[in-house]
Order: sequence, then C-alpha cells, then structure tokens
Amino acid sequence: MKSLLLTLSLLLSLSAKADDLPSWKDGSVKSSIIDFVAKVTNEHSPYFVKPADRIATFDNDGTLWSEVPTVEVEFTKQKLDELLQKDPKLAKQEPYKKIIDSIKNKKKTDLTQEEIMTILAKTHAGMTEYEFRMSVERFFQEASHPKLHVPYPQTAYKPMLELLTYLAKNDFELFICSGGETTFIRAVAMSTYGIPSQNIIGTTFKDKAVERNGKLVLVRTEELDLVNDKSGKPIGINRHIGKHPILSAGNVKNGGDIEHLRYSSQGSLPNLQLLINHDDAKREASYSEPGNLSLKAAKKYGWQVISIKNDWREVYDTASLK
Amino acid sequence: MKSLLLTLSLLLSLSAKADDLPSWKDGSVKSSIIDFVAKVTNEHSPYFVKPADRIATFDNDGTLWSEVPTVEVEFTKQKLDELLQKDPKLAKQEPYKKIIDSIKNKKKTDLTQEEIMTILAKTHAGMTEYEFRMSVERFFQEASHPKLHVPYPQTAYKPMLELLTYLAKNDFELFICSGGETTFIRAVAMSTYGIPSQNIIGTTFKDKAVERNGKLVLVRTEELDLVNDKSGKPIGINRHIGKHPILSAGNVKNGGDIEHLRYSSQGSLPNLQLLINHDDAKREASYSEPGNLSLKAAKKYGWQVISIKNDWREVYDTASLK
Repeated sequence: MKSLLLTLSLLLSLSAKADDLPSWKDGSVKSSIIDFVAKVTNEHSPYFVKPADRIATFDNDGTLWSEVPTVEVEFTKQKLDELLQKDPKLAKQEPYKKIIDSIKNKKKTDLTQEEIMTILAKTHAGMTEYEFRMSVERFFQEASHPKLHVPYPQTAYKPMLELLTYLAKNDFELFICSGGETTFIRAVAMSTYGIPSQNIIGTTFKDKAVERNGKLVLVRTEELDLVNDKSGKPIGINRHIGKHPILSAGNVKNGGDIEHLRYSSQGSLPNLQLLINHDDAKREASYSEPGNLSLKAAKKYGWQVISIKNDWREVYDTASLK
Repeated sequence: MKSLLLTLSLLLSLSAKADDLPSWKDGSVKSSIIDFVAKVTNEHSPYFVKPADRIATFDNDGTLWSEVPTVEVEFTKQKLDELLQKDPKLAKQEPYKKIIDSIKNKKKTDLTQEEIMTILAKTHAGMTEYEFRMSVERFFQEASHPKLHVPYPQTAYKPMLELLTYLAKNDFELFICSGGETTFIRAVAMSTYGIPSQNIIGTTFKDKAVERNGKLVLVRTEELDLVNDKSGKPIGINRHIGKHPILSAGNVKNGGDIEHLRYSSQGSLPNLQLLINHDDAKREASYSEPGNLSLKAAKKYGWQVISIKNDWREVYDTASLK
C-alpha cells in the first residue's frame, strides 16, 4: 500500500511538473531532471532531501548564457582599449603586448582565463569595489551581442531559465559557480537569473579596507584571491557553501567544470549532474574540447549530457530577441 | 488619508510584533529594533526594503553566545594538548612554547586571534575538510561550558535567538560574520541559530584540491585565506554577500566589530546597528575594552548599545540550563 502511494504520488508529481520545462524535448535528459526533482522533494521517497540541503550550482558562461563570445572577454577588451587610449605606450610593454598579440591572432578566438584576469587586475586595481561595479553596470547598459544584437542578458538559454525557475519552485537554493569574476556576474545575475549577489561564487581579487574622507571603502588590488575554475570550483563551493551541491551543471569547452561536477557527485545525498554539449551550429554554436575530457568524465561518472541540438526545443527566448 | 493609513499600519505592526521579543525589556533599544523592522517591511513606508536586500549580519562570540570562555579557544587548547601528547618535544619549540606560556599566564584569560589561528593551522593542516569537520563535531558532542555545565550551544543568548527568529519571520536573510573559523562555526550554526552553512562568513584557510583513491578531496593548508575580523569583516561581507547589511550586530571586547558595523551603516538603504555591552557580572559577565573604542564608535555613528543588565529580561534559556 505504501509503495503504491509512493508510485502514485511520484506519477502525479511527474505529470504535474512536466510543463515546467516546455523548451526541453522529451527524452532521457528531461526525464532524468524531472525524476530527480520528484524524488528529492517527495517526503515519502527514500531519496527525500530537506530544503536546506537542496543546493544547486550552475556554471555561467556556456551553461546559463552564450559564451560565443564570452561576455567577460568583451568587457575586458573594452577596458584594455580604454587603458591604451589613455596611455598608448603600454601597448609595447608586457603583459599588454602579449595579450594584444593574442587578441589579434585570428586563430585564437578567445583570451585565456589567465589573460582575462590579468587585464581585470591591471585595469581595475586601485578602484573601489563600488567604482568597479558601476563600470560593469555601464558596460551592460551599452553593450550588445555582436550577432544577436541584443543586450547580453537576453542571450541566456531559455531551457536553463526554465530549469532555474523549476528548481526554485521546488525549494532548491540556486548558486552560480563560475570562473568569471564575482562582481562582474553579480551585476546581472539577479535581473537575468533571479540569483542574488550572495549566491555568486566566482573568481575573486583581494580587497583592502581603507579610510577615505571619514568613510571605510574597499579598494581592489591586483592580487588574485581565488581562481574559481577547474579544481578551484570545489574549493570555492566549500568556502562559500560548505556542502556538496545535489545538482550541478556545467558545459563542454575546456574541462572547467569537471571538478565542479565530480564534487557534486561525491556528496552523500542523492545528486544529479548536467553537462551541456554545444553541438548546434545552426541555432547557437558548435565546439568541442581538446581530448574530450568533459564528455569522457560524463561517461565515467554517469552525468547527463545535454545536446543543445536534440534536447532543446528552443535555445533563446525568441520574443526577447526580436 | 495616506499618512493616516501609514500611521495605523505602523501602529498595528508595532503592537502585533511586540511579543516576538519577550526576553527584551521595554526601552529605547527594543523600540529601535521593532520600529526598524516595522518600517523596512511596510510596503507603504518610504523606508521599505525589498526582501532580497534585507541582509542581517551577526558576530558570534559575545554577540550570539557567551565568549567567557571563547568556545573556539577551548577547542584549540584541546587540540594543542592532543598534539603535545603525541609529540611532547614540540612544547619546547616555537610557536608552541610561546602559546603555552600565554595559556599558563594567569593574567591572560584568552588567546589572541592570531594564537588561535596558529594552533588551528598547525593542528589541522593536512587534514581533509571532512576530517576537520568531524573533529569539530566530536568536540561539540563532548564539551560543556565550565560554569554553566551545559553543551556550548545552550549558552546562546535567549534575546538574540528571539531576534534571529523575529528577523527571519520578517524575511531577513541571516548571516554570521565572525572572526572564528568558518568550518568550526558551521558545525553548530544550523542547530543553534537556524543559520545554514552557506550563510557563515568566518576566517578561512586556503584549501588544496587533491586526488585520493580516485576521489577529489579538499585538504586544509596552514595558509590563512581571510582573517574575518576588524577590517577583514567588510572584506568578508563584500566577498560573500556583495551588499551592505541593513542590520548588523556585534559586541564590546576588542573592537572586532567596529568596521563590521560601520560598513553596515554606510549602505544606501535604511539600516540599524546593535552593539552589545557586557555589563552584567551577576547573570553573565562584565568586561570592557581598552580605550572603549567600540562604545565611542557607537556614540559617533549612532548605533544602539544593548546593556545586558538593563535591556535583557533573561540572558539564557533557563529551561535548557537545568
């Protein structure tokens, strides 16, 4: 009788919640998400997880919004231009010379994480946290995606926005866990994803607290505090959350989420990992990873691989793209 | 008419919520708390703050529970004893020799923050985060307060527990912001205060992510990451939350919360700061601060000073002390 009730309540919750993910095509990935949420939220299920432990972490670039181009790279290129306009001599000095060569080199489409952080360090050290935040907000007000011609927040993936809403409705606490700089992500995370600034785990620089005109202000330095990428992600998650996420999502590109998803899968509670594969050149972009390490890890550890081509009915919110 | 409605709704909310703080004596401090919560939660008030911005930060030792003795000092002394039993030679070597002298010196009742962190570094470097957490949990299962003879979590101040509950009911998000080590506080924060591990801002050590038997584990190192005390507190708050708290509480002892409360008072939203003065030798403890810097700051910046003697009807939950 008890198991019949359990089956019935599971079926009911499955059918009731299927509509929460309309942009996802029916299939094993969508089922795995709905099954997982149904079992961890069902008090009669042996897999029940209490709300305080329903921690979900999401990579940002390539997982929640497009990374072609990477938004933070566009921001840092702009800041580098501004810096060079003010002081053209810098273009012949390191580390700028190497970075400029890297941008000009057509074979390289993107800056490395290290190059981004170097530019951020050089262009923003000495600014207060407030000034940096304002500089990021100005960028987001003015900038638009080079192909889609909309502000960057509108390049958020519609199926992922549905997933965030669905999880929040089921009392998950949502976090971003990104290699991007924390303050940069905070500037748009609430309005784009409904994720507040206190739930952003990103790369951080060391701050100094200094006195200015009778006020205490936080001044950014060049010194990296934590690079929240690759094996830095579990370190960032432990520092910020202190628990293993029960749901984590990342994407194929450079192996940046392998340790993130492994850390989630090593928790003692039921857990689910999602890895997005960018295989849709027509609607978004198609790229793979040297050595296919992320896909190999997905196979080894049993993660769900999301094929944009096959699993997503829509990629962007077409209404907002018009 | 609108202002009459506003006055009426304020009065109603004041009377309805007065009972939420039964251990607080009527007076200017209690009124300031109730007035503040009423105005920031009232949508018709010009001081309304939306729930996502109702951030409250609390120091722990001496603010939420007793710091006579400081619980983490008792823990570190025990760990130091265990270390010296294993390797007695260490007692003649630095930094142990100096710390042992400091403990034996009767004039000094406490270890400094630096000494605590040195012991924590020396006794726990090389442990995994999981092992350290287990070591802290064992301590809390066995240890009891030397005078009150109850487990330490029962030395939480009853009026402050009421305040936490009252704020949570009014959609404040509660954080601990303590000089204590983060993992140490996490071990009891949920069961004692209802504050989850993701809302603990404390002192942190750098971790390494390493491979062990096919698993990814986080290993503690001796290197301090952030000392979340004095001017480290605003840095910790910005790193973790990215907003100014609208309510912050600390206590008189060594000026550890001055920058914490100043940072709160510098936010652009309505805000309230509370500073506990330990002036009740009979029921708790009486101690002041060299130079009275915290009390002077309270006067200068307009913070509410809580006198344990005059503002609290009860200090501990007497039922739990029996």
